[in-house]
Amino acid sequence: MDVKLYDTTLRDGTQSEDISFTVEDKLHVAQLLDDFGIHYIEGGWPGSNPKDIEFFHAVKKLNLKNARISAFGSTRRAKLTCEEDPNIQALLESQAPVACIFGKTWDFHVTTALQISLEQNLEIIEDSLAYLKKNVEEVFYDAEHFFDGYKANPEYAIKTLLAAQRGGAETIVLCDTNGGTLPFELGAIIEEVKKHISVPLGIHCHNDSELAVANSITAVKHGITQVQGTINGFGERCGNANLISIIPNLKLKMGLDCVSDQGLRKLNHLSHSVRELANLGEWKNQPYTGKSAFAHKGGIHVSAILKNPETYEHIAPEVVGNKRRVLVSDLSGRSNIQYKIEEMGLDIDMNDPSVQEVVQKIKDLENQGYAYEGAEASMELLLQKSRGNLPEYFKLRGYRVVDERREQDAEPISEATVRLEAPNNEVYHTAAMGDGPVDALNSALRKALIQFYPILDEVTLVDYKVRILNTTVGTKAKTRVLIESTDGKSTWSTVGVHCDIIRASYLALVDSIRYKLYKEKI
Amino acid sequence: MDVKLYDTTLRDGTQSEDISFTVEDKLHVAQLLDDFGIHYIEGGWPGSNPKDIEFFHAVKKLNLKNARISAFGSTRRAKLTCEEDPNIQALLESQAPVACIFGKTWDFHVTTALQISLEQNLEIIEDSLAYLKKNVEEVFYDAEHFFDGYKANPEYAIKTLLAAQRGGAETIVLCDTNGGTLPFELGAIIEEVKKHISVPLGIHCHNDSELAVANSITAVKHGITQVQGTINGFGERCGNANLISIIPNLKLKMGLDCVSDQGLRKLNHLSHSVRELANLGEWKNQPYTGKSAFAHKGGIHVSAILKNPETYEHIAPEVVGNKRRVLVSDLSGRSNIQYKIEEMGLDIDMNDPSVQEVVQKIKDLENQGYAYEGAEASMELLLQKSRGNLPEYFKLRGYRVVDERREQDAEPISEATVRLEAPNNEVYHTAAMGDGPVDALNSALRKALIQFYPILDEVTLVDYKVRILNTTVGTKAKTRVLIESTDGKSTWSTVGVHCDIIRASYLALVDSIRYKLYKEKI
Repeated sequence: MDVKLYDTTLRDGTQSEDISFTVEDKLHVAQLLDDFGIHYIEGGWPGSNPKDIEFFHAVKKLNLKNARISAFGSTRRAKLTCEEDPNIQALLESQAPVACIFGKTWDFHVTTALQISLEQNLEIIEDSLAYLKKNVEEVFYDAEHFFDGYKANPEYAIKTLLAAQRGGAETIVLCDTNGGTLPFELGAIIEEVKKHISVPLGIHCHNDSELAVANSITAVKHGITQVQGTINGFGERCGNANLISIIPNLKLKMGLDCVSDQGLRKLNHLSHSVRELANLGEWKNQPYTGKSAFAHKGGIHVSAILKNPETYEHIAPEVVGNKRRVLVSDLSGRSNIQYKIEEMGLDIDMNDPSVQEVVQKIKDLENQGYAYEGAEASMELLLQKSRGNLPEYFKLRGYRVVDERREQDAEPISEATVRLEAPNNEVYHTAAMGDGPVDALNSALRKALIQFYPILDEVTLVDYKVRILNTTVGTKAKTRVLIESTDGKSTWSTVGVHCDIIRASYLALVDSIRYKLYKEKI
Repeated sequence: MDVKLYDTTLRDGTQSEDISFTVEDKLHVAQLLDDFGIHYIEGGWPGSNPKDIEFFHAVKKLNLKNARISAFGSTRRAKLTCEEDPNIQALLESQAPVACIFGKTWDFHVTTALQISLEQNLEIIEDSLAYLKKNVEEVFYDAEHFFDGYKANPEYAIKTLLAAQRGGAETIVLCDTNGGTLPFELGAIIEEVKKHISVPLGIHCHNDSELAVANSITAVKHGITQVQGTINGFGERCGNANLISIIPNLKLKMGLDCVSDQGLRKLNHLSHSVRELANLGEWKNQPYTGKSAFAHKGGIHVSAILKNPETYEHIAPEVVGNKRRVLVSDLSGRSNIQYKIEEMGLDIDMNDPSVQEVVQKIKDLENQGYAYEGAEASMELLLQKSRGNLPEYFKLRGYRVVDERREQDAEPISEATVRLEAPNNEVYHTAAMGDGPVDALNSALRKALIQFYPILDEVTLVDYKVRILNTTVGTKAKTRVLIESTDGKSTWSTVGVHCDIIRASYLALVDSIRYKLYKEKI
């Protein structure tokens, strides 16, 4: 069976309250979707958003390899002909080879929202499609609220689809617009539809009941051949059906060749790139492409994974371009450390006494509140230090951070001083201001170090996270600081724990710097 | 049909790489689950994590109204009897009335991971359950990897369930441990199981294919009577089945009375409170309880919603304790405030000009990163201040915090000084040391204030949480501090936001103090 993927990230996805793409962003997303192997890209709603016309004209210059561009719109208004309707005309103006228009299925919507007769609605559907069919290469029909409409008045719902079929729709897309339909209801309704409609069917789901992925693949199981969704499930309210989960489910579990093997390996890249372009934070637990999707924590799981990854993985992570991670945590044992050592490509014998020492050291530190999950760089430094492989890059003689507000309503001032001893025994004493005490300390520290390690100029901090441990003791609580750094080539994470947040931050900062120097073999 | 809800947030949920609960957090979660109406609460795995014993003993003092406490464990080890097996004995030691143990279904796991014979595995299952049955009130069996095991070797998989049935398991829980099963496969396999097994069945799903909610409700559709899951879907890799979506799907869409109407109205509170306790950021698009779940962006949807909300909502948001948001800012701001005012039981007329002023003020503050959910005391202070009901208890003239480490390997020292002006114009200048800069500031502040407000001696801080906003800018990021305080009679929460963490903490501390004085009508 042939299943076509129809992506509406650029149209329905942008209805999400947190997403707004520039035309450049949209072009970038279109290129990514095409590289991946998506069949149809819905680029916007030119009749509702005139800026979208710009995208449709610019996208033609991209010369996409796989994807056809689709423009979204609605059936014509009741009082206008298609020639007069600006929304229909905008579809032609977009010059997109595909048009996808939505119309009303639910009798209650026809009379309540449109306030026209049921018969009139059928004419509008047929008429709008027939007009577009003459003017556009390919025409699809989105039957809005199809499942709710069918449940309310099955006879009328089917009539609207028959009108679309008469109008010449090449695919009729059944929409679960409000996202409230259950998979077993949906399957049964599709079977009914197939008794009346001969045109190929599509599915368009929303995730309000956390069922959009299940509903989409259930529809395919019932013979539907076009799946509409968005990357990462972006969309209004609870989002649209998530293509990032649907695609591997179809290909790997249902054996439907909707994307090439090569394409599928780009799934992780597609997911993360579109999220970056949308400027949204990570979804760590995202199925297939999340950072945690193939992360193993429990000791039992890890020892089984070492014997055979299939024991606790439903698919091999590489198939979707993701990778396995073994977390080192208080639930873990020797086998997690062993895995880490292998992952880092270190040539260390597990029977080496230094390994036993490190396992014990990590356990002690974890009791103090350290967590090496997500702080692999600090963990590697520990390992290398215990083996005598880590130079002492500098000695901290002392630091001082002052944070003060001198007058009522004045802005607070943060200043830090640092005294460091370089390997040549020279002492550097620096001072810096900052946005808050940790920023000031970071600046003073770098100001000192950069004088003898100029390569540190490449390092910037991209993430700074604070977690308060044992919170019941108020401001006396222990603080865990996680810092993520990058030098443009790779990123690494380090950790520091102390009841003094400045000290905890200092520890994580210093690990970040030591890791860079270690990585550069300095 | 009677469906029982089995929550494993405190056990399987904590396998998530970002979640670690203290015993106090766990007790708080247990209380919330019980108030909501969950039937079983799995509190931990005493044989794997000795700290869990502390929870099991403490939870007995909570006198839960609805929920039974369950302890998790595994079948006995091959070489030990149940009497000798520390993991089995820890279940008894926990004194939990319910024990839930898992065993192997998948022949490949038996031979690869356990490295014992298939026959031996069946003995272990039967034997472990029979032993627990004699010593614990109620015993459940988790058939690990049931669906994968069944697909690999259906005959053997059923044999393991029959062993559990012989052993006396009161419910046999079919686990999709790797989260790779599709709903239609799962339904068909359950039908096969029912031909062989007479004991009630349960379901335990993971979300690796974004299908855990669908699989759980499909199982119920096929006659399963116990649903295991976690709040918000917390759990390792991609998480467990999300009870926050499953429960309303069962009750509102499948008509199964698994929770009372009153309970269901607490769904939103349960979801957000557990997320706060886990110190995780919000899931804005979360089905049913997300901030965006019933948010409508301008245009067609909003005007339809105004005519009839059913046009674009699958359920009424109030039913799950959530609310509709129409993203027209003025409107939503006002109604949020109105909601809060009613919630606090304050006698304020919404047409009072002070309300309009506060709406604007809150909007400005929210743009700066303030969040008043979970900081009701700060919000009430704002409201009362705008109405002229809040005295100026003191004026801060200035503060200074010094945090320094003078020598290598020395412990850092934190010292704070504060200058305050009391209402009688007298100036108090105090200094204090602390465990970290915030603790020092807190001590100096209280040292000054207590001299003219001795009642502040009753106040202690019980919780201090830090969240970094806009994390991509490293140590320059904005910080939100949430402080929870108590005076033994009640607890209240306050918030402060600033790029300087000391300043943010100061703002939250001062609100905590002002709230106490306001509450005491001083």
